[in-house]
Amino acid sequence: MTTCIGYGVHEANAPLEPVRFERRALRDDDVAIDIDYCGVCHSDMHYVHNDWNTTRFPCVPGHEIVGRVTTVGSAVSRYRAGDLVAVGCLVDSCQQCAACEDHQEPHCTHGMTPTYNGLDRISGEVTRGGYAQHIVVREQFVLRVPPALDPRFTGPLLCAGITVWTPMRAHGVKAGTRLAVIGLGGLGHMAVKLGVALGAEVTVITTSPGKADDARALGAHHVLLSGEPQAMKAAASSFDLVLDTIPRSHNVNPYLMLLARNGTLVLVGALEPLEPIHGALLAVNNRSIAGSLIGGLQQTQELLDFCAEHQVLPSCEMIEIQDINQAFTRMHNNDVKYRFVIDMASLKSVDTQDAGESTR
Amino acid sequence: MTTCIGYGVHEANAPLEPVRFERRALRDDDVAIDIDYCGVCHSDMHYVHNDWNTTRFPCVPGHEIVGRVTTVGSAVSRYRAGDLVAVGCLVDSCQQCAACEDHQEPHCTHGMTPTYNGLDRISGEVTRGGYAQHIVVREQFVLRVPPALDPRFTGPLLCAGITVWTPMRAHGVKAGTRLAVIGLGGLGHMAVKLGVALGAEVTVITTSPGKADDARALGAHHVLLSGEPQAMKAAASSFDLVLDTIPRSHNVNPYLMLLARNGTLVLVGALEPLEPIHGALLAVNNRSIAGSLIGGLQQTQELLDFCAEHQVLPSCEMIEIQDINQAFTRMHNNDVKYRFVIDMASLKSVDTQDAGESTR
Repeated sequence: MTTCIGYGVHEANAPLEPVRFERRALRDDDVAIDIDYCGVCHSDMHYVHNDWNTTRFPCVPGHEIVGRVTTVGSAVSRYRAGDLVAVGCLVDSCQQCAACEDHQEPHCTHGMTPTYNGLDRISGEVTRGGYAQHIVVREQFVLRVPPALDPRFTGPLLCAGITVWTPMRAHGVKAGTRLAVIGLGGLGHMAVKLGVALGAEVTVITTSPGKADDARALGAHHVLLSGEPQAMKAAASSFDLVLDTIPRSHNVNPYLMLLARNGTLVLVGALEPLEPIHGALLAVNNRSIAGSLIGGLQQTQELLDFCAEHQVLPSCEMIEIQDINQAFTRMHNNDVKYRFVIDMASLKSVDTQDAGESTR
Repeated sequence: MTTCIGYGVHEANAPLEPVRFERRALRDDDVAIDIDYCGVCHSDMHYVHNDWNTTRFPCVPGHEIVGRVTTVGSAVSRYRAGDLVAVGCLVDSCQQCAACEDHQEPHCTHGMTPTYNGLDRISGEVTRGGYAQHIVVREQFVLRVPPALDPRFTGPLLCAGITVWTPMRAHGVKAGTRLAVIGLGGLGHMAVKLGVALGAEVTVITTSPGKADDARALGAHHVLLSGEPQAMKAAASSFDLVLDTIPRSHNVNPYLMLLARNGTLVLVGALEPLEPIHGALLAVNNRSIAGSLIGGLQQTQELLDFCAEHQVLPSCEMIEIQDINQAFTRMHNNDVKYRFVIDMASLKSVDTQDAGESTR
């Protein structure tokens, strides 16, 4: 057991503050990591606010983790002290079911273990995330940060990036693919950059005329304003893949109409009931709606390697941990281009007395 | 122009009665067919009742047509007089767009021409269907009935059959595929027979315990009662493909839960707004919902050949044309196992005086 200082909450709707807790002692297949950077994901806010009534307190969020290996367990073969590594949304799975064998660990039949707010498969202890000094993670769930990838910008690839990369790969996005991205937040802006890097013809669909310049600055070839009926009509049946990053219930029918024959709309944001979908819009053009959930470890490593090779980096605003509550408020108001990343060096200046008693 | 006697309606909500109309003179690429049998599709009823406000009167329905070639145009090479042939839901398309080139004529960019209630691409005349003595159809839209296929049972393959065959082929149904079929009507019963013939493990999902024996008699390996929560829960995440033949708005969420990882639910019945779909049910297991629309000519011929080879035949109740109104009523009440087929020889005994004036 090692005491760790992080930022978290002891109850819902409290501001994040220093929290003292214990990390488990290193197992044979564990890697201990000192955290340098951690991205701030929209879901961190939901857990802190207990929006889904599933939060285990004290909650220390953060699943876009980048850091350096400090120690490894006796059975670890792929990492050694000093390696630059990353940890994403999951830290364990059964490693034996068909999903795990297919490298789709997020779909593990026995349930994947989330990086925070989960229960460790062996000890049952609550997992705590990357808004912290250090973390201990099973070797198979640690990713390598390629030398060419700037570690400051690596975090958001581990959740926002892989969430859009997985469906882009599943649907074979390549040169000439007509890709539309709905929404220009953390996920959307990564989809644009990755789509452009894969050679797709990328259109950003937005309600906000003011985002047109931003979309083009990110590399989008076209902008389609969903509030303009004429433009939407003209774009009917013209996209092979639509990535819908809207993070709440909405009407997908106007977007379904945009799909070309055999096209798919992939929902990567909305995890709630959608407004009624019209069956005829699916029959015409053999359209589909698909769900998608982060991505497997192998595909996440592929993404890090791709981004290193093509220098595709998220657009980030670096913050100090002391600014996290303000960052949450700004994120809630969509006031970030496009992802906050916490420089965990800022945690060094926290008075550890403020962190209170240690929680197991 | 050739005068033709058929059964149809001059206005909505009237009973079907003898109708006299003109078939076009044979074009160079046309095939003239004397109709022996015509299947009765649920959509025939909707057109006759003008349920979709798109019916052109007089309306002569029927798009599950089987008959013999009587004459061919000068440019026709594939058929000659005496050939046993079939005509399904469409009689023309542009033959030049990407969909037509991909043998997906129902998705023709310029709109396919339906067998009845459409407008001929050249003359603009209203197309009239197979509840009639004869029909004239462009060669490319005429199918060959293999010698081993009983013509009495061929009609329902052309709509009910191809509608379920297309998604089964698109999703690679083969030995071992875990296939569920929701509903046991015209489409559902064909899906069971075809799924079994392809080697799939077929489960029928129904609200009616009384249909369990029927399902097994058709070859289904399992029956799942959707009204039994325990059984539905036990079947969670256990199907690769779910064919949903429910022909009206419904709640698909309980069925989405049945899909295994990367599984798809294909809607082949509901052409209206569905009850709200829960986004999280799609994200878990990377599930999809897809639409599908009849099938292309090449795939329809493939189906006829497959059914001849494997002796897969729809279960039909033969009727005379004079019984068509009673058949519509019974079909409306789901009182048919599983498809009515009209023996058009019965049309010979119609007093042609009853058919009234000819309509172009």
